Order: sequence, then structure tokens, then C-alpha cells
Amino acid sequence: MDANKQLNLTMLCDFYELTMSNGYFQCGMKDRITYFDIFFRTVPDNGGFAIAAGLEQAVRYIQQLHFDDDDIAYLRGRNMFTEEFLQYLRDFRFTGDIWAVPEGTPIFPREPIMTVRAPAIQAQLVETYLLLTLNHQSLIATKANRVVRAAEGRTVLEFGSRRAQGGDGAVLGARAAFIGGCKGTACTVSDELFGVPAGGTMAHSWVQMFDSQYEAFKTYCEIYPDNPTLLVDTYNTLKQGVPDAIRAFNEVLKPRGLTKCGIRLDSGDMTYLTKKARKMLDDAGWQSCKISVSNSLDEHIIRDLLMQGAQIDMFGVGERLITARSEPVFGGVYKLTAVEDAAGNIIPKIKISENVGKITNPHFKKLYRFFGNDTGKAIADYLCVYDETVDDSHDLEIFDPEATWKRKTVYNFTAKELLVPIFKNGELVYKLPSLAEIQRYCAEQVDTLWDEVKRFDNPHNYYVDLSQKLWDIKYKLLRENNR
Amino acid sequence: MDANKQLNLTMLCDFYELTMSNGYFQCGMKDRITYFDIFFRTVPDNGGFAIAAGLEQAVRYIQQLHFDDDDIAYLRGRNMFTEEFLQYLRDFRFTGDIWAVPEGTPIFPREPIMTVRAPAIQAQLVETYLLLTLNHQSLIATKANRVVRAAEGRTVLEFGSRRAQGGDGAVLGARAAFIGGCKGTACTVSDELFGVPAGGTMAHSWVQMFDSQYEAFKTYCEIYPDNPTLLVDTYNTLKQGVPDAIRAFNEVLKPRGLTKCGIRLDSGDMTYLTKKARKMLDDAGWQSCKISVSNSLDEHIIRDLLMQGAQIDMFGVGERLITARSEPVFGGVYKLTAVEDAAGNIIPKIKISENVGKITNPHFKKLYRFFGNDTGKAIADYLCVYDETVDDSHDLEIFDPEATWKRKTVYNFTAKELLVPIFKNGELVYKLPSLAEIQRYCAEQVDTLWDEVKRFDNPHNYYVDLSQKLWDIKYKLLRENNR
Repeated sequence: MDANKQLNLTMLCDFYELTMSNGYFQCGMKDRITYFDIFFRTVPDNGGFAIAAGLEQAVRYIQQLHFDDDDIAYLRGRNMFTEEFLQYLRDFRFTGDIWAVPEGTPIFPREPIMTVRAPAIQAQLVETYLLLTLNHQSLIATKANRVVRAAEGRTVLEFGSRRAQGGDGAVLGARAAFIGGCKGTACTVSDELFGVPAGGTMAHSWVQMFDSQYEAFKTYCEIYPDNPTLLVDTYNTLKQGVPDAIRAFNEVLKPRGLTKCGIRLDSGDMTYLTKKARKMLDDAGWQSCKISVSNSLDEHIIRDLLMQGAQIDMFGVGERLITARSEPVFGGVYKLTAVEDAAGNIIPKIKISENVGKITNPHFKKLYRFFGNDTGKAIADYLCVYDETVDDSHDLEIFDPEATWKRKTVYNFTAKELLVPIFKNGELVYKLPSLAEIQRYCAEQVDTLWDEVKRFDNPHNYYVDLSQKLWDIKYKLLRENNR
Repeated sequence: MDANKQLNLTMLCDFYELTMSNGYFQCGMKDRITYFDIFFRTVPDNGGFAIAAGLEQAVRYIQQLHFDDDDIAYLRGRNMFTEEFLQYLRDFRFTGDIWAVPEGTPIFPREPIMTVRAPAIQAQLVETYLLLTLNHQSLIATKANRVVRAAEGRTVLEFGSRRAQGGDGAVLGARAAFIGGCKGTACTVSDELFGVPAGGTMAHSWVQMFDSQYEAFKTYCEIYPDNPTLLVDTYNTLKQGVPDAIRAFNEVLKPRGLTKCGIRLDSGDMTYLTKKARKMLDDAGWQSCKISVSNSLDEHIIRDLLMQGAQIDMFGVGERLITARSEPVFGGVYKLTAVEDAAGNIIPKIKISENVGKITNPHFKKLYRFFGNDTGKAIADYLCVYDETVDDSHDLEIFDPEATWKRKTVYNFTAKELLVPIFKNGELVYKLPSLAEIQRYCAEQVDTLWDEVKRFDNPHNYYVDLSQKLWDIKYKLLRENNR
């Protein structure tokens, strides 16, 4: 398989993107420059932060954006679009600018994680897929990061392909899980395409294919003497599974001086069984044997098992990770924040809502993260208008945008811009990091968050503040729209 | 886009399928004929039944099964596989038999929805993707059917692409939602590829792009005078949105004698707003205007809205359908049920578990559904050994496999085999129905279920019984394994 041999995903768009685009085309708005932000409103699982992911697929999508002849023929057949518009689509390419936070960055509600500046039709058409890829992979990376933190340094592997919501759910889900901190996956093609290390040893069917479990184990050890992992729960784990595994290790590995091996449990009470199994292995001289468990794990079950002293070296996490089962939706939205007039002036736009939390932050913006120079920890995020610059050599007063009287002064800090240029005039200007680099960056950045923000339940609220100038513009627009 | 221009998905397999296959190859078991069943254990959302879907993608997968040169190069680079095995993969094709229930069939826990009979390596390698496609699409078709039933005949459209778990989640999720009864989708490419009718009109950004909402509506009506649907909640729904829509309909549609139109609400209290909007539209002479709503809908919210008398003609259902948010995992499993010995005798196999519910039904089996001749309703499903035949011209005593003393006699019934041949010796022997045919078949088959089985909460338990012969074989295997 070839990573570049992808489907053209241009037609993976909501139909209204096309009806609106045809509309912009007909009323002379097609080249009007627009600004859209992608942001999300709540962290899944009531967590304190999310992890940005999916940018690489967004880049590939933008680069390949075009309509094939059969796409245009399909659209013509819908009898809704003018021939001029269909001709326009024939040469359609993305020529705008995109900024985004790098993959692996911890992100917070209501801050832009991507900004698109492009002619109206272009900016509109890319909405669905950009949301889809950032929503999907951020969802899984965020969940994986929770699971990995629960495992407290033990290895977590992604095992969920068979329960994923479609092929991309499996393949790109494994990629996102790796960004969030998983060490590998069961999904072979995610290794081939993206370098997510794939591994796995045997299913129950392997054991059932032989006349006895011992024979199945012995045969496996003979074929894979370097670090075989035997699945010990096909029949009775402690009475048969572990003794048969020890016997196979003794017969096949020991004479060759090999010590790397493992057992895997996929059912039963993991605390009880792993404690017993650990003792049996140790008593037999197999201290080197690692114990893996799988079976409907998530961050809460893993934390419970470890609190109870379960003897586990490795967790295989399946359906609850690959679907983010406890909260399978990442609610990123794509909202118009500004348009340019004929003279190139940027006119901020706002989307009002009865629900105050749904009111957007208008304008073309910059996003900063402030790090304390003494601790290295993240203090707050700060949104300002595109033409503002934070001078971190001076103290800065910031305020809670939902309670503007709550103010504090930050000092001795470093301000880092989070949105980096990805496309400029349709050209990729960003060097995509390797997946291993993204994983490392993610771990480093999560380390800049205080433990209070990382708590699973009732985490500390990390602030995303607005500059005074941005707040004033927002307030003015709110007043104007409420007359 | 071309439906046939798909990725080779052969490498979308769990790595252990490959290590086991290499193992079967090395110990001379590669051509041993094996039987695997796919079945699931619980209905999502505590429902009374699920809907089978995803078979067409399983067929395409099996037809395209092969390893490319770069796949083999990747595997060679892992240094775990013998060169003989890699050479064998070069010519690898599926040559076995597959039976499956047709898409759209209501299905129940613990009955096979697919049976694979093939040489061991072939049967093992297809596990991951077959599970993935049936799990994913059955999950979404099942959820969609719940949502559609809640809407009581009103139109339900699938709107969730942007929140789907990957591209396939969106595109094939829309396909599955159509099978479950949705009338269409927002996802353009699902129309182009599969004929799921795609539609949609405008986002809030359309309204924001104009100097006034009225101008946005009027322009839209001029461009799309045939049945425009206007999004009325960008500012204030009742004070501005509905009046602006009525004014645009009056100005643009009325002079042309056009009456088909609609409004859509995407926020606020849907019961209150739709009642008020309906009255405003009716009072203005726009009884023909349809009201659509969207915004985090699911079967429970839809039922509540209708109970409260909300005036809604059409539901756009997004993230809670496309991810099956309330229960985003369909737990289909793939279990070895039999092997053939050298003489071609079928030897049943069982997988034991501490958890009684996880014990498998052994053997190569047939699955019947019994329909009452008087009512046309489904009475029970019936699993028997492959060489048994049900004679529905005679009464038949059936029993609860979990409480064998509970027996009843079925009479005046028609027995229908549910598993139909899909592949024979690697050749497709099944004529894939059109998607519209599948949707119709699904609706007809759901109609054969009693209302008690279709209840959302605490549905009646529909029985999947075993023949006496199958039960005796299972019991014997359980006893043998528990010595």
C-alpha cells in the first residue's frame, strides 16, 4: 500500500458547501476573502485539555483538492448548478492561507486550532473534511493520552481495528493513538503507512487449531523463539494456561538461553489472575516474562487495576480507545470570523447565539501560550487581534473573558505563538514532522501542564483569555447585533 | 470518484493474523479447512435487535484481496516471516466459501451473521476487515433504524460527516444510515458512490456573508427557487429569522407561483420555536413550508419533541447517529467453530470461557427464521447443524438454550434460511442488491418483528434456539473441556 495512493476526498463535503459555493459564484462573491476558525467547545470526558491531531491528513487533503470529470458529471446531473460554476470547478484549486497548531499540542476550548483565509468558495468547500480529520484524530489522540497517563509509564498498545468505525477509523485512529502516547498498534497497515509499530502474536483460534494447548504454545515458541507472547485464557488461565506456557518456555526457550517472553490474558479478573500468574512465573524462574492484558480496558479500569496491585507490564486497549467509547464525538466547528472588503480591510464577523457559550470569537486572530520562565509550565493562553504582538519582556494584565473583573498580571513569562503557517497562497510552507517527533512533542507539551489540569475528574480550568482590543471588538459586535 | 478505485485493504489486518498465518504455513496447516462464525453478543442501546449491514464492502474486500510488492517488502523488513511464506503471499487469493445474512436483515445476539469456510491462512487473514465492516455498518444501520422509528414516518436525514470517525466513517456511515431508513445524507460522495440522496442548503456562514439576513435569504431564493430551505437561527429565530424567511418567500417565490420551501432551525428550544414558527408561516399563507430541525438529535430527543407537539417535518441527525454516540461499539467477534480432518470430516470446535455468555456455538451451522403463517411475524430463530433441515410442514418443538426445560411447539410456520451463499470456491455467487432494495428489504423485515421486540427500553427477548442435535454436540464439547 502506498500512502500517496489516496482517494480524492474533494467530494467528501456536505452538499450545502456546494450549493453555497454555487451561490457565491452567482452573486459575485466567489473571490471575496474570508476567514474561518476551527475551534471546539468542550473537552471530551470532562477532561482538562485535548490533544490536536489530524493536521497531516488535512495537508494531504488540501494538496489534492480538485474535482474529477466524473465528479463534475455527477454535479451536473443534480440540475442545481450553473454550467459556469461547473467549469469553474474544473480548475478549482486551493490558493489560500492556513495556520494551525502543530499536531500533539494540548488545546483548550474556544481557541482556534486552525484558521483558514481564502476566497469564499475555497474556504467553504474545505469545511467538512478539515473538521472531520481534526475532530477524528484529536478525539482519539486525546483519549489515548488519558489511557497512557493512567498506565503510569507501562506500555499501552492500540488493539481496536476490528471495532473501529470504518477503515480510516482503524488506520488513522492508530496514528492518532500513537500521537497520544501509545507505543504501537495491532493494525499492520498503520505501521506500513505511518510507522506506528505494529505487533501481535496469537488469537484463541491458534490455540484451538492444535490438539492441545501445550502443543499450540510449543509450536509457537519454536517458530517465534524471540519474545513469544502466549495467550493463556483459551481454557482455564491458572490451571492450564500459565502452566502450559511455563512448560513451553522451559522446553523451547531455556535450552537456547532465551529469556524474553510474555503471556497475555484476555478475560477474567485481571487483578487476581495477574497476581497469581506473576507468582507462578517467578517461582518457575520466568521473572523475565512480561504480562499483557486486554479486554475492554480504558483509563478508569487501568487505574483501578494498578491501584489494586495488578501485575501488568502492558495494556492492549481496543474498542474503548479506537472509538473513544465514553465520548465518541469531538465537537470542532468551523465558523466565519472575518471578511475582507474590496480595499483589503478585515471586517470582523460574529455568530450570535441564545446560548452564550456558542457565541464566537470574531476576527483574524493570533493565539499565544504563556509559559512561566521559572517553572516551564503553561500559565494561560491568550487570543489577540492579528495586528497585536505580545511583548513578554513586560508584565501583562490578562482577564477572564467570562468575568472581566477577574484580572491578574503575568510576569517573568515567555509567550509562544501556537498557530503556525501551514499554507501560504496555496503552497505548503510547513515541514511536516515525523510521527515519532509528533509523539515526543506531545509528551513534552503535556508535561508543561500542571497536574491540576491533567486530573481525570474536575480538572482545573485552564484560561484562554482575550486581549483588551479583541474583547472590545467582540463586545461592540454583540451590542450591534442586539439592537 | 470511482467506487472501484479503492485502496487495497489486505494490509488492514491485525498483525497477529500474519504471525499466525506464517505459523500455520510453517507447521503444515495452511490448507487445513477451517470454519469461522461472525456473531455479536449484545444489541447496542439495550435494543431488541440489530440490523445487518456492511456486506457489500466485505465482498469488495474479498474480491480485491492480494498483497502488493511493497506490502511483501514491508513484511520482509520485519524479519519475522520465512521467505517461503512471503512467496506464498505473492499469489495469495481467497478460494473459500462465505455465507452471510443479507444486508438489512434484523439480527440477534449469538447467531452467525457470516460464516467463512476456507484454508486456515485465508480464513485467519480476513478476520480483521470482515469484522470491521460488519461491525461498523451494522452499528450505524441499527442506530439509524432507532432514530427513524422515533420519527414516526417523518423524514430523517444523516448530517454527521464532520463528526465522523474518519472518512470511511462518514461515507459508509451514510450508506448504513440509509439502510436503516434515513432518506438521505449531507455527504455528497455517498450520493455519488452509493446513491444515497445528498442534500443541504446553507450554513450560518451564508447568512453572515451578506449585509443583512434578509438579503442572504432573498439571494438564496433567487438562485434556488425550487424548494429553498433557509436557516433561520443565525440571529434571533422568531424576531428576525422566520419573518425574513417569509418576506423572502413572498418576494421571490410567490410571484412565480412557487410554493415548495422550508426553514431549518439549528439551536434553541425546538418544541417552542417550531410551534411558533409553524403558526407564523401558516398565518402568512406558507402552509407548504416544511420545518426542519437539527442540533444534537437522537431517538430519545426526537420522541420527546414529538410527544410535546413540536411542529417538525424533517430531522437532520448528526453526530449522535454517525458515531452511534450512546453506544459506539458493535461487538461482533470471529470465532473458530470447526475444522475438517484429512478425510473431510467436520470436527466441531468450541471456545470455553469463565463467562457463560462468552461460550461459542460450535460447528458448521444453518440459521433459520420462523415466520407465523397467520401473522407473517417472526416467531424465533433456530440454529442447527449444517446437515439438518427444518421441515416446516410439521410442528417443531424448540427450547431455550439457556433454560432447556423451557420448551414450546411452533406450528403453522414457514422456515426461512437466513445465511445465503456469497462466495463459493472464491467466486462471488451472490447478486448484490441495490442500496434502495436493501433499504426496502430492511423496512419489510423490521415490520415482521412484533412491537414488543422493537420497544426502545426493555424490549421483549427474541429467542435464538438451538436444535437438539446442535445442543447435544455443544454439551458434549463443554463436558470434554471441563474434565
